[in-house]
Amino acid sequence: MTDKKKIAILGASGYTGAELMRLLALHPHVAITALAAERSAGQPVWAVYPHLAGVALPDMVKIDAIDFSKIDLVFCCLPHATTQKVIAALPANLKVIDLSADFRLKDTAAYAQWYGHEHHAPDLQKTAVYGLTEINRDAVRAARLVANPGCYPTAAQLPLIPLLRKKQIEPGDIIVDAKSGVSGAGRDAKPDYQYCEVTDGMRAYGVASHRHTPEIEQGLSEAFGKPVTINFTPHLVPMSRGILASIYVKHADGTSANGLRDTLNAAYAKEPFVHVLPAGASASTRNLRGSNHCVIGVFADRVPGRAIIISVIDNLVKGASGQAVQNMNAMFGWPETTALEQPPLFP
Amino acid sequence: MTDKKKIAILGASGYTGAELMRLLALHPHVAITALAAERSAGQPVWAVYPHLAGVALPDMVKIDAIDFSKIDLVFCCLPHATTQKVIAALPANLKVIDLSADFRLKDTAAYAQWYGHEHHAPDLQKTAVYGLTEINRDAVRAARLVANPGCYPTAAQLPLIPLLRKKQIEPGDIIVDAKSGVSGAGRDAKPDYQYCEVTDGMRAYGVASHRHTPEIEQGLSEAFGKPVTINFTPHLVPMSRGILASIYVKHADGTSANGLRDTLNAAYAKEPFVHVLPAGASASTRNLRGSNHCVIGVFADRVPGRAIIISVIDNLVKGASGQAVQNMNAMFGWPETTALEQPPLFP
Amino acid sequence: MTDKKKIAILGASGYTGAELMRLLALHPHVAITALAAERSAGQPVWAVYPHLAGVALPDMVKIDAIDFSKIDLVFCCLPHATTQKVIAALPANLKVIDLSADFRLKDTAAYAQWYGHEHHAPDLQKTAVYGLTEINRDAVRAARLVANPGCYPTAAQLPLIPLLRKKQIEPGDIIVDAKSGVSGAGRDAKPDYQYCEVTDGMRAYGVASHRHTPEIEQGLSEAFGKPVTINFTPHLVPMSRGILASIYVKHADGTSANGLRDTLNAAYAKEPFVHVLPAGASASTRNLRGSNHCVIGVFADRVPGRAIIISVIDNLVKGASGQAVQNMNAMFGWPETTALEQPPLFP
Amino acid sequence: MTDKKKIAILGASGYTGAELMRLLALHPHVAITALAAERSAGQPVWAVYPHLAGVALPDMVKIDAIDFSKIDLVFCCLPHATTQKVIAALPANLKVIDLSADFRLKDTAAYAQWYGHEHHAPDLQKTAVYGLTEINRDAVRAARLVANPGCYPTAAQLPLIPLLRKKQIEPGDIIVDAKSGVSGAGRDAKPDYQYCEVTDGMRAYGVASHRHTPEIEQGLSEAFGKPVTINFTPHLVPMSRGILASIYVKHADGTSANGLRDTLNAAYAKEPFVHVLPAGASASTRNLRGSNHCVIGVFADRVPGRAIIISVIDNLVKGASGQAVQNMNAMFGWPETTALEQPPLFP
Repeated sequence: MTDKKKIAILGASGYTGAELMRLLALHPHVAITALAAERSAGQPVWAVYPHLAGVALPDMVKIDAIDFSKIDLVFCCLPHATTQKVIAALPANLKVIDLSADFRLKDTAAYAQWYGHEHHAPDLQKTAVYGLTEINRDAVRAARLVANPGCYPTAAQLPLIPLLRKKQIEPGDIIVDAKSGVSGAGRDAKPDYQYCEVTDGMRAYGVASHRHTPEIEQGLSEAFGKPVTINFTPHLVPMSRGILASIYVKHADGTSANGLRDTLNAAYAKEPFVHVLPAGASASTRNLRGSNHCVIGVFADRVPGRAIIISVIDNLVKGASGQAVQNMNAMFGWPETTALEQPPLFP
Repeated sequence: MTDKKKIAILGASGYTGAELMRLLALHPHVAITALAAERSAGQPVWAVYPHLAGVALPDMVKIDAIDFSKIDLVFCCLPHATTQKVIAALPANLKVIDLSADFRLKDTAAYAQWYGHEHHAPDLQKTAVYGLTEINRDAVRAARLVANPGCYPTAAQLPLIPLLRKKQIEPGDIIVDAKSGVSGAGRDAKPDYQYCEVTDGMRAYGVASHRHTPEIEQGLSEAFGKPVTINFTPHLVPMSRGILASIYVKHADGTSANGLRDTLNAAYAKEPFVHVLPAGASASTRNLRGSNHCVIGVFADRVPGRAIIISVIDNLVKGASGQAVQNMNAMFGWPETTALEQPPLFP
Repeated sequence: MTDKKKIAILGASGYTGAELMRLLALHPHVAITALAAERSAGQPVWAVYPHLAGVALPDMVKIDAIDFSKIDLVFCCLPHATTQKVIAALPANLKVIDLSADFRLKDTAAYAQWYGHEHHAPDLQKTAVYGLTEINRDAVRAARLVANPGCYPTAAQLPLIPLLRKKQIEPGDIIVDAKSGVSGAGRDAKPDYQYCEVTDGMRAYGVASHRHTPEIEQGLSEAFGKPVTINFTPHLVPMSRGILASIYVKHADGTSANGLRDTLNAAYAKEPFVHVLPAGASASTRNLRGSNHCVIGVFADRVPGRAIIISVIDNLVKGASGQAVQNMNAMFGWPETTALEQPPLFP
Repeated sequence: MTDKKKIAILGASGYTGAELMRLLALHPHVAITALAAERSAGQPVWAVYPHLAGVALPDMVKIDAIDFSKIDLVFCCLPHATTQKVIAALPANLKVIDLSADFRLKDTAAYAQWYGHEHHAPDLQKTAVYGLTEINRDAVRAARLVANPGCYPTAAQLPLIPLLRKKQIEPGDIIVDAKSGVSGAGRDAKPDYQYCEVTDGMRAYGVASHRHTPEIEQGLSEAFGKPVTINFTPHLVPMSRGILASIYVKHADGTSANGLRDTLNAAYAKEPFVHVLPAGASASTRNLRGSNHCVIGVFADRVPGRAIIISVIDNLVKGASGQAVQNMNAMFGWPETTALEQPPLFP
């Protein structure tokens, strides 16, 4: 273990923290040496997550109890706002992958508008790299602080960015109808996410007002070179994991659904985690549970000039902890697939 | 019972047949006197549907065994194509409500194209009334043969028809992203609808090719006065009942989401089963299980000029058997709410 | 409405309160004229329970705001302990049906032991009638205060009491392995009942220590004439509603599973809500959702001298609010089935 | 790959076949070189199991097309009866792990009675080793043909065998109330396992008549040294994976629930896959999804002399394919945990 990288997870009692532990249990080059969870400090992990009973892990402590001089990389899974203060106080040589929304928006004014308070670490923000690995790989490799993308933004941007870069779709007519499993809401007890309130039914929420909207628009605007405003409508579906984004676009004159598919195929041909399906096919979230893959299908619409893109991920893996591990692998120069090769769990 | 209307249900062993029995059990003016189910002929209903054990019902028989001279109204829940032949052979004085797709499309050429065979009763088709009750009430009241609308078409047309009639939305830019519970696929055993294949996951299906598309377009075209082509993308969600349609529209110049909502409020102000929610609200399918209601929310989009409409029903009730009972009530001159006043089941 | 009985529901914001409103919406002889819910006081019911939007109901108020001189009967759905104080303060002429555990145990010392505090109304306790309708019908009809049974106790006692009365089973060898849907845990947000913690898995809880144990033992002891101690092991199953109790008994010499079934058939032959199935059959909770029925199957075991009883109810109906309505009907001299004749919702 | 063992899976299109592929994807010492599936012959695996799209696997063929001279070990996942004939025809040097019930019962007369036809390979039966690894490890290591245990029998026998060997429980009073997820019924489309029939409800089935009964009794009888007859009552629960067996036993005089727990602790102290929990604790199936673990809790009953044992596994892993891999590891002399160290998937 002497030559393994030493990892700390802050906010280990949430779902993304647990998912990091699950994935890193099979990673040959890292050792989790510190776990922080304020309310669960002093407890072993299995007391909070019995499914991890078979994994050798340190007990959870308060953040203050961690000696960060002995840590090589921190995964930060804390709530927004708290995160900014905590990361600002970490030693400057420490690599950090932040799974919160705190460093995703480059425009701190936009952050303040959507999150309701001033940004607490605007200088640090300037150094953060947005960790959509396939899109920002070189920057991620060189980064000290990676802002790991949100779940919806990952599902939406992976198919849209290559198309906008090539100006193959109209930037003013993008509709993202997204459906998410319930784990996206986190583990804290909330009335709306009790079993009896969620099972056997579905609903839209945050219509035209969800906080992932500016994050998606930021990525699309960069890709297009001009500001892009989108429709983004999330829905809650009775499943634990998974996001399915149905994206409705108008393609540019001279191209077609096939043209869009060709562009995506070319963009992701060498990527281990992004797959573009042949014409006529789309994926079920059920076939990606536990995996870091994003699967994309492209369809011609009956409405002339329009195409439909179906993009599917596991929100806790490619949409959170899996992409974080992928980014860590990139930052340390390991193959990005390390510890991410377990097939999905089905059924 | 002498003065009760005598009802037969053909295709009683499917979910829509069972749902008719559930609803009619509380109807004061009708008696179910014949039930036909080819494969279950000879069996009591409780052997096929134990939940109906407490309802007094005749045993199931083959269609040939029914004396239709003693029947006042037939609900036909048979598969398409079969239906046309069966209904064509019924006595002409018999009222008929058909829950299949067989008489919904006025253009029999369109029928042949989408269903893969010639229409078997084109003359009868000309007499059929499309039973979207709130839209075609007068015709339904006078009808001998009602084509009961499909589940998706009900959820989509109720909000869109009043808006298209008033030319408040662009007809060339309508996207219907619809999510359905699994009962919409019927009761027959199919590999894709086994529990382990469906639970805890979701997928799109029939993208840009679902047979409910021409039915929706027919209604929208009539409302607008010119042909309307739409995007319609259905999804399968792990829940028994419910449809949630997220509809993306471009509103006409000079109006707004509020204007659309006002139009819908005016159109449905006196309707017992269609409810338009105040700004900011939308419904969950979970709050409509077992009821004949359609609940509609309207939102302004962030994309200028666009609005979002969320329309929710129970696919087996307002989307099938409940609307059929509503139509029967209209045809016999009873209050439309008769036997449809049970509150939804929650949780 | 002048001649309708006036009903108040205290604790209207919980699931049993909502279920009372659903059932009473179809009751011809009562009007709900007051609803109390401390935290939701001032709100309309639909704001808390959107599925009841179509039912005409008064807004919720604090208990203090109710003029009980204008109420004929109170359903009390408050938490235990609170309940005792509230009911003790009600006018003496008011009929009360209490859905909490506060007046179920006749032995207030046992109450103190299992619930952790002294009973606050021991004198009132002496007047309470245990409302297992089929067993205590005459006492219920004459009661002023009915202690409505718990969900598990209803499922367990209905099959066991007739057998113990006839000494057909051994009192020292009764095992009740019970499985419940999640609504039994109530509507308050608790970490253990979040969707992601419950779905797609199951667990035992309260093994050999659940508070419904003394309630079941009280009923069985009365039936047998001597103290009976049982094994009672509850389990949490990912479904909204339903209890299935698998009961393992040793039958007395000279009898058999068939003999037990005959006894139950005789005991419940005229009961509208309790059904004994023929040999070889048992029920699914899925076929009872929303109904007040209890369905019982009896099987011979492979172990000589043993029998297996499967008893199924909807925990929120026969296990709570439905039985409460049944008791109200009995107390007012109406047919017990009034407002309880809606068939179950399936699928 | 030259030094990897070559593996064939017969019946690759069922859930146990798919689960073998999922687990073996991470196995360092084997290569899957042949997959047989009669109806899916000619197709790639991803066409049948999209979740395995990322795993390099041969296309599926008919059994006849496999050159077994190039195979080192066969996993046989075929239906019963078929299995006996197929295995009898395999080369004698080939190692075989059979996941069907065909070679589990040593008494071929009992097989004929429970399965309704004569055993087709009685001589081969005599050579089969029952592969409950922790119990029969030495025999498994030396075996040519391993009969992999059923899911329910695994969950029931692991806690009961050590107790019966030590005569700590009464052999005539064992009740196994078992609850299973739906994947135990396999992947073929059957009406009873359609989503809408299973979700949000539960039922008992095969009461006192399930085919796993003689398998459990065989193991318990061997452990006790005399014939043991048990109660075994299976239930179907709306979850994909998992078995929870609630086992009710009478302990011998002079011992207690604590004594039983001590025995189990001693028996499994060194086992990587069987865990005995401290007093007061039991497991949820949800925390074992995808893993090869069996977790056991022991509780004192309120009924004097009785104890309650809660045993939990994933039916597709420790109850099928995981134990099969564990047995393969034992047969080839590899650490039994090889390829079985992935943590469970939660949530």
